[in-house]
Amino acid sequence: MRPSARLPDQLRPVRFIPGFTNQAEGSVLAEFGETRVLCTASVEERVPPFLRGSGQGWITAEYGMLPRSTGERTPREAARGRQGGRTLEIQRLIGRSLRAAADLEHLGERTITLDCDVIQADGGTRTAAISGAWIALHLALQGLLTTGKLEQTPLSRQVAAVSVGVYQGTPVLDLDYAEDSTAETDMNVVMTDDGGLIEVQGTAEAAPFSRPELLAMLDLAELGVNAVMAAQRAVLSGERTP
Amino acid sequence: MRPSARLPDQLRPVRFIPGFTNQAEGSVLAEFGETRVLCTASVEERVPPFLRGSGQGWITAEYGMLPRSTGERTPREAARGRQGGRTLEIQRLIGRSLRAAADLEHLGERTITLDCDVIQADGGTRTAAISGAWIALHLALQGLLTTGKLEQTPLSRQVAAVSVGVYQGTPVLDLDYAEDSTAETDMNVVMTDDGGLIEVQGTAEAAPFSRPELLAMLDLAELGVNAVMAAQRAVLSGERTP
Amino acid sequence: MRPSARLPDQLRPVRFIPGFTNQAEGSVLAEFGETRVLCTASVEERVPPFLRGSGQGWITAEYGMLPRSTGERTPREAARGRQGGRTLEIQRLIGRSLRAAADLEHLGERTITLDCDVIQADGGTRTAAISGAWIALHLALQGLLTTGKLEQTPLSRQVAAVSVGVYQGTPVLDLDYAEDSTAETDMNVVMTDDGGLIEVQGTAEAAPFSRPELLAMLDLAELGVNAVMAAQRAVLSGERTP
Amino acid sequence: MRPSARLPDQLRPVRFIPGFTNQAEGSVLAEFGETRVLCTASVEERVPPFLRGSGQGWITAEYGMLPRSTGERTPREAARGRQGGRTLEIQRLIGRSLRAAADLEHLGERTITLDCDVIQADGGTRTAAISGAWIALHLALQGLLTTGKLEQTPLSRQVAAVSVGVYQGTPVLDLDYAEDSTAETDMNVVMTDDGGLIEVQGTAEAAPFSRPELLAMLDLAELGVNAVMAAQRAVLSGERTP
Amino acid sequence: MRPSARLPDQLRPVRFIPGFTNQAEGSVLAEFGETRVLCTASVEERVPPFLRGSGQGWITAEYGMLPRSTGERTPREAARGRQGGRTLEIQRLIGRSLRAAADLEHLGERTITLDCDVIQADGGTRTAAISGAWIALHLALQGLLTTGKLEQTPLSRQVAAVSVGVYQGTPVLDLDYAEDSTAETDMNVVMTDDGGLIEVQGTAEAAPFSRPELLAMLDLAELGVNAVMAAQRAVLSGERTP
Amino acid sequence: MRPSARLPDQLRPVRFIPGFTNQAEGSVLAEFGETRVLCTASVEERVPPFLRGSGQGWITAEYGMLPRSTGERTPREAARGRQGGRTLEIQRLIGRSLRAAADLEHLGERTITLDCDVIQADGGTRTAAISGAWIALHLALQGLLTTGKLEQTPLSRQVAAVSVGVYQGTPVLDLDYAEDSTAETDMNVVMTDDGGLIEVQGTAEAAPFSRPELLAMLDLAELGVNAVMAAQRAVLSGERTP
Repeated sequence: MRPSARLPDQLRPVRFIPGFTNQAEGSVLAEFGETRVLCTASVEERVPPFLRGSGQGWITAEYGMLPRSTGERTPREAARGRQGGRTLEIQRLIGRSLRAAADLEHLGERTITLDCDVIQADGGTRTAAISGAWIALHLALQGLLTTGKLEQTPLSRQVAAVSVGVYQGTPVLDLDYAEDSTAETDMNVVMTDDGGLIEVQGTAEAAPFSRPELLAMLDLAELGVNAVMAAQRAVLSGERTP
Repeated sequence: MRPSARLPDQLRPVRFIPGFTNQAEGSVLAEFGETRVLCTASVEERVPPFLRGSGQGWITAEYGMLPRSTGERTPREAARGRQGGRTLEIQRLIGRSLRAAADLEHLGERTITLDCDVIQADGGTRTAAISGAWIALHLALQGLLTTGKLEQTPLSRQVAAVSVGVYQGTPVLDLDYAEDSTAETDMNVVMTDDGGLIEVQGTAEAAPFSRPELLAMLDLAELGVNAVMAAQRAVLSGERTP
Repeated sequence: MRPSARLPDQLRPVRFIPGFTNQAEGSVLAEFGETRVLCTASVEERVPPFLRGSGQGWITAEYGMLPRSTGERTPREAARGRQGGRTLEIQRLIGRSLRAAADLEHLGERTITLDCDVIQADGGTRTAAISGAWIALHLALQGLLTTGKLEQTPLSRQVAAVSVGVYQGTPVLDLDYAEDSTAETDMNVVMTDDGGLIEVQGTAEAAPFSRPELLAMLDLAELGVNAVMAAQRAVLSGERTP
Repeated sequence: MRPSARLPDQLRPVRFIPGFTNQAEGSVLAEFGETRVLCTASVEERVPPFLRGSGQGWITAEYGMLPRSTGERTPREAARGRQGGRTLEIQRLIGRSLRAAADLEHLGERTITLDCDVIQADGGTRTAAISGAWIALHLALQGLLTTGKLEQTPLSRQVAAVSVGVYQGTPVLDLDYAEDSTAETDMNVVMTDDGGLIEVQGTAEAAPFSRPELLAMLDLAELGVNAVMAAQRAVLSGERTP
Repeated sequence: MRPSARLPDQLRPVRFIPGFTNQAEGSVLAEFGETRVLCTASVEERVPPFLRGSGQGWITAEYGMLPRSTGERTPREAARGRQGGRTLEIQRLIGRSLRAAADLEHLGERTITLDCDVIQADGGTRTAAISGAWIALHLALQGLLTTGKLEQTPLSRQVAAVSVGVYQGTPVLDLDYAEDSTAETDMNVVMTDDGGLIEVQGTAEAAPFSRPELLAMLDLAELGVNAVMAAQRAVLSGERTP
Repeated sequence: MRPSARLPDQLRPVRFIPGFTNQAEGSVLAEFGETRVLCTASVEERVPPFLRGSGQGWITAEYGMLPRSTGERTPREAARGRQGGRTLEIQRLIGRSLRAAADLEHLGERTITLDCDVIQADGGTRTAAISGAWIALHLALQGLLTTGKLEQTPLSRQVAAVSVGVYQGTPVLDLDYAEDSTAETDMNVVMTDDGGLIEVQGTAEAAPFSRPELLAMLDLAELGVNAVMAAQRAVLSGERTP
């Protein structure tokens, strides 16, 4: 029995609230149960040095947790003077995942930064961040198309992510904190809408996992990603229709 | 005419949403118009070294802005590796203001940290932070009383803050960003419920200000603080009654 | 009775020693009693990025305390790897105050940096720094006029500062360390020679202060600033006449 | 055709040189073709704060690249003042992998630090580091057993790692730099001697990968890890017999 | 001909002003011509971790330059966030030199920190700092003897330092900035009152130097150190007699 | 008797292994007994800002110790977030010494960085680094000549270094760690092939040293440097002949 009494293949309620803040070119609050991540997309008309003059754009991400998004207060990284290894690892993952969703040649020499800030943490913040950031990116690109700054969208794929794991011997979908902190295996999967894999990051926490377990987790992930993608599309089509 | 068409002595709509997040001992979203600041109070059973063994507690604050709370993206302080001067100045101000609201001897050897994170910025973030942090502190102390960890509240005063200024020659209350960025004078006032002054920080931006202007701004500040305090009390009494 | 046996409205002996060091374009040692701050003005023929091409100049300030300017040794900020919040707050205050004294359009694309280093601290270092830095700025601008680099002085106002406070219930002028560390209220006031207010920063340390106390402190501040300005003018006219 | 003319399932020559340096409790140079990583194990009789008094030990890792281990000089992280995201991500991976090889309760309150420093980089440095670090850990634990500091080895599993990928449409084993920099997919796999999976980290670089590709890569990884483990055992048995 | 028209073996006027500041246990302004370094000795009743419980004390030094002690403004190290290599090298030299002057066993478990801050720089700041710091140390130890905290002075030797060099082919004593910046060789020599050498640091700037040049520089250094030591003794005996 | 049973004027076996790594323009492993330092020379087609447009090149050095090159593990400087004073002092020394070996005008606007990384430390790492770095520099310059990027070598002198000291009253050559940690005096000497002195850095560790001791150490240094230079030439001539 999962602590939340969910079935093994049951996602938490997934909700995306577009336009959660009003300054960014794209903004969405991504909720997976009690996990809430604010994702904003900021467009800047410049690129990092290694792309200057290339005609190509860049997509990058930053991740942070508000100090009291967690059960015990986490020291503020700005006050400690550096981002921790976990933070850097997660924001590198988000950036790679979103770059896989777009054709940077069609973006022009501009940078889109996805800021993913965890308002409340209950497991799965990085996959919620990726799923929400894809919407924020989409909204920002829509804006560039609407204002004529882009003629053609650089968005080439829909991208979403979920966490899966092995909890008390059973493969389960979308771990919350109570599961995540004691699961034997934890795996994050980022996929595209045509079933392609972008990232598979599986980690044995308590015991090695087997190939059958890996496959069972991938099945669950595919199921979960499909549901998340449906929610992504719903919110975006809702954007278009009044 | 103010850009927002408000009267000189008119506050923006002020709203406090208690329990905005679920992990902190106290949590409130403070909204002054489009300015939104998440204030959480975290209780930890330890004090800084200079208070160990004193029987006395400590109240401190940290402040941050989400990168895209602003019109243009502000670089993330955690990524830059240090908190800027403005941030440090504001969090020192919040901490001093809240310490003035409490009797630290009655807190016991514990620390309450007020984290004030700006979700959306439209002027007056530091005064919204102080006003919201007071509620978060109040909620956290109620929790300590309810669970029997405290017998007597250390809260000795109600504290709130507003910004005032001189805009196009006229003293005005509660500047939004459009006013703040072009005002001749900007002043932040922190007060107690018995009309005492905790902090007065007035800065001439474009031209020196006169003593009559200072007094007119103080009148507006008192008016504004009273209204904010009414809103603080309303939300707290709403907490108690279902 | 004040610890120094001064009257409530009595300044400490104020002395400015121009030319205290020989490398800077402007240099003065500012003494308020035992408080001694070395203020130098450095002229550089460049401006920060946000002003490049604007034809306008910039005035900024940095502040530091020698480790043993204080009663107990203060750790060196360079060794700790960052400037503290108090330091950043003070140097931002000095910079704003001096920019209020000048018309940056008439400075040309150059930067003047006011370095204010505390040799010995006995309360009121920030107001001594502002008062001394104004002289250093004046000397540096005189040099630019003399050498023909400027045709017209950008100096538009005389600026000076004093601290005031409420000590044992009585408003007093120019607090030394013994008073400052136990005063109920501490306020720094920066003014111009025509009686305008540049900065008013009042902080309740032990108890809130009332508006009458605020007004009494402003009266003392005006008295003190006038005396400091007389000393500023004396030293500058002494410069011109051999 | 692979740039190195290797077959798709062909490892580079793998060599472990134990005792490469003489100060560490365990030391080995791990070579995968031109990739050379010095792995040392250092035993210290203390544990991090969160384990004090627990009776349990800790295993951790640090990773670095010598500035000119790469084709172009990489700036020294010590000079830049921080370890980059890639470095932190890799050393977290190494640490997790090695902790999965041992039973920390049987280590006593001591810490073993695996330092993995890349002398020469030609792809696959992180998997070479894990494979070498396991030997260094083994040597250090042998020393603790020999000197009677441990009665029972905490080593519970043999652990090794290889990289696999999809290069020009073909799954291949053990990518060198020429392949790694242009491969469509890159995956690192850490396994145990009983075929369990410790870490699976697959990343689509140019195009998403399919589940059949994932399985083909896992097959190659298992093949490669078995060969690496044979080399690990050979060098360790060589240690015992003269 | 030297730029200053001094003879090759001629020191600049050397002056030590004891009690230059009033907070430190020992304070002296050391002047070698236009070079002015404020040296303070601070006594703290604690030692670094490696000496705790040893009964032994510690002497250490820190060095800094005020930003405008130099001809062009030097960026403030506290603002840059780290002490530069030159600073660290100099403060290590000062610390070693002063430790050579004392018997740390007789100091008790306390630390004396010598802060050497350059008010004005005209060459030879590190040797002026060493020579001045010895006086500040002496004054601080006298205080500990006078107040009965020490029964016996830990000061075992008189220590002073001068710079020498080869300028336009001629060995010269006590280089000022004009010479130092163009000299072929620059050497700093720290000596004791019985003619022993504590530090010899000679650097070829433009061309290698020969052993005869080294010996000639040592002769000049001995001459110079003797004169500096006479000045040290004069100021200390002046302290004792009114 | 020296701990190693060497004669006072006896060097440890000195060996230089050129081409130890394959990426750098010049690479050599320098061994003085158990001390092993990897020295690489990296050529980059750019110069620091102060040399841009000057037509002149730059030679600089960086130094590091692998964490377990030492008897006890030394914390990694990259993880601590800054290079220590000793490291900065040593790399400044290496850079100065190598610049003395070359005519920077003939290098063109390019930078050669000598990275000296200590694989194993047993005393004398800085002098081994200088001696090895000279070979790495030579190899890199040969490459530039061979490929026609340079017409004329900027190498003007052969440079090598040794440590000397006074150990138990006797001047000795080439101190290993056992001697270095207890020697009364430690001196590093950098010389040219025509007997010129580049750097002389002598430090009294336990007791001041006399001028006769200084001269005896210089005699030993000259002897040692000559032997090291012979080894340098041997390895380079071996390079040329197959």
